[in-house]
Formats: sequence, C-alpha cells, structure tokens
Amino acid sequence: MARRTDTREKMVQAGKQLIRERGYEATAFSDVIEASDTPRGSVYFHFPGGKAQLGMDVAEAHAHDQVELIDRIAAEAGSATQLVEQYVDLGREGMRAGDYTRGCGIAPLIIDGAAGTSAEIGEVSRRAFAQMIDRFAFHLVAFGLERGDARQLAEAVITGLQGAMITSRALRSTTPYTAIGAALRGLAARAKPR
Amino acid sequence: MARRTDTREKMVQAGKQLIRERGYEATAFSDVIEASDTPRGSVYFHFPGGKAQLGMDVAEAHAHDQVELIDRIAAEAGSATQLVEQYVDLGREGMRAGDYTRGCGIAPLIIDGAAGTSAEIGEVSRRAFAQMIDRFAFHLVAFGLERGDARQLAEAVITGLQGAMITSRALRSTTPYTAIGAALRGLAARAKPR
Repeated sequence: MARRTDTREKMVQAGKQLIRERGYEATAFSDVIEASDTPRGSVYFHFPGGKAQLGMDVAEAHAHDQVELIDRIAAEAGSATQLVEQYVDLGREGMRAGDYTRGCGIAPLIIDGAAGTSAEIGEVSRRAFAQMIDRFAFHLVAFGLERGDARQLAEAVITGLQGAMITSRALRSTTPYTAIGAALRGLAARAKPR
Repeated sequence: MARRTDTREKMVQAGKQLIRERGYEATAFSDVIEASDTPRGSVYFHFPGGKAQLGMDVAEAHAHDQVELIDRIAAEAGSATQLVEQYVDLGREGMRAGDYTRGCGIAPLIIDGAAGTSAEIGEVSRRAFAQMIDRFAFHLVAFGLERGDARQLAEAVITGLQGAMITSRALRSTTPYTAIGAALRGLAARAKPR
C-alpha cells in the first residue's frame, strides 16, 4: 500500500488537473480516483472534509506552485520588467502547450460560487491569490520598485493573467497574453523606484 | 399564459443571474424556474437543447448587454482613454454594488469546461468575447486610434476586466480594478493615432 502522503498528493495533483480543465463543480471524486489510480476508500481517509477539502487543497497547491515559479523566474530575471515579461511569457507558453484546455486551479472556486457560500473556501481562495500577489510584489521591491507601485503592479499581473486564461481559452489564441502583457510591461516601466 | 418571448426572456435573465453567481455547472433548471417564477413545462418548450442552450443564450445575452453598455459609454466619453476608464469604473461599481457575488455570464462556460467539450458552446463563447472586443475596438478607432493598437487595447480591456472579476471577488476588494485600470490607462495613453 502506498504511503499516506503519496496517495494524498497523487489525488490532489489529479484533482488540480481536473479542476483546471472542467472547474470545481463538475469534478467528481470518482474522476479523481480514476485519474490518480488510487483506491476508492482513500477519499474518506484523506479527505474527511469531502470535495470542499479537495478544492481547498488544490487551490493551495496551485498557489504554492505559482509562488515557486515566481521565485524561479525572479532568480533569473535582471529587472522588474523582465520578471513581469517572463511570467506572462510562461503563462502564454503553458496555455499553448495545454492546447487551451487548462486554466487556474483557484478561479473555479470563485466562478462556481463555492468561495461565496463557504467562509472556509472563501478564506482559502483569498489567501491563495494574496500569496501570489505578495510574492510577486516582494520580488518587485527587491528589484528596486517603490512599495506601493510594486503592490499595484503585482496585483495587475495576477489579475491580468487570470483574465488571459479565460479569454485565451475562449478565443483559442494567445493574443490576450500579448495584449495584457503590453499593458503590464508599460505599468512596470512607469513604476517609481524606491 | 405569458407570451412565449416573455417567459423565455425571464428564464434567460434568471439563468444569467444564477450563472454569474454560481457558474454554469451548478445552475440547475429547477433553480432557474424558481427564480423566474415560470412554469416547469416551459423548460422543454423554450429550451429544447436543454441546459447547453440556456448557457449559450446567457452568454449571448451577456455579450449583448456589454456591447450596449460599451456603446452607451462611448457616446458620452470624450476620448479613447475616457472610454477605457469609464468601462473599468462601471465594472468596479457593479462588483461593489453586487457585494462581490457576481462575475461574467460567459466565463463559466470556459471555466466549467463546457466550451472545450462542446464545439457549439465553444463557438458561442468565442463569438461572445469577440463581439465585445470588436465593439470596443470599433469605438477606439472612432476616437482616433490606429487600428492595430485599438485592437490590442480592446483585447487587453476585456481580458483585464475578466481577471478583475475573479481576483476582486476572491479578495473582496476593488483594488484589482484600480491596478488593472492603471495598466490599461497607460496602454491607452501610448496607443498610436490613426
């Protein structure tokens, strides 16, 4: 039998994939079990809080992955503008590589209303986005931007890419990344230094 | 008995409200019937294509409303920048007035995967966003912007506001509108004239 953490992690990763493709509401545990090749009994063992718990775990995993990605890009970028450009570029590449089938792992909790009806899901969703924005802003400040401008730019980046994941999937085109990327690059160029 | 068009229109409007609040997947016809106070039999009469048809009608109604709104703002705006600013401002006001409970009427078809699995829903979603972008770009050109820059700005506006509807709901704050608004205003200011 697989170790508890392995099985649980496999289910969260499979759940993330499914939620990014078909949203929170349409993702059933039976699909997660099939996709992760885990035993049916493991649902009740690993997710005593049911689907809400899976949704929250997926949102947290998504935010965690994005924070790691932001850190990785920041380590190689030479400026605030490069950090913004490369994060947008990776979003665009991911969308194209996934053939326009996958979006964010947090947004479905908002769109499907779960964050609005459960205070706990609402708080996890809020924190997931806040973590991504905070981390992006942290690196922008490290690149020399004034704190308020860094905060605003970080919020614009996370917001703009949320939008790009929707219109790009709808249009089956990466032009929304180019368009919002131009707006974000301009905001980065105008940001005040510390 | 109400005229066919009245009943159908009431159901589409009720469906739009529900889909904007809880997404496409979680919206059941029984809720639409209750919210619109229409007879149960009318579902099969007015929506022989079932829920997919309701979802597509809602997306089209949403795009239609947004095109009308864009026209109304354009009629009063004095410049491309004002059109962008006022569209963002109205989005922000609507989000606050709705207490962060409502998003887009088209995005749920994307997030919940319906647009990806049904070619017909996919085409309606694509066209709905394309209509909004085309109309916004049309007015930007009328305000004197070069065609390519108008197109890019229009796509950035529709994309940015899609994102703001998600992060604003998640954070229960209008700051995403302020942040993305600053990026879009800057892009408008830098757009080339015709």
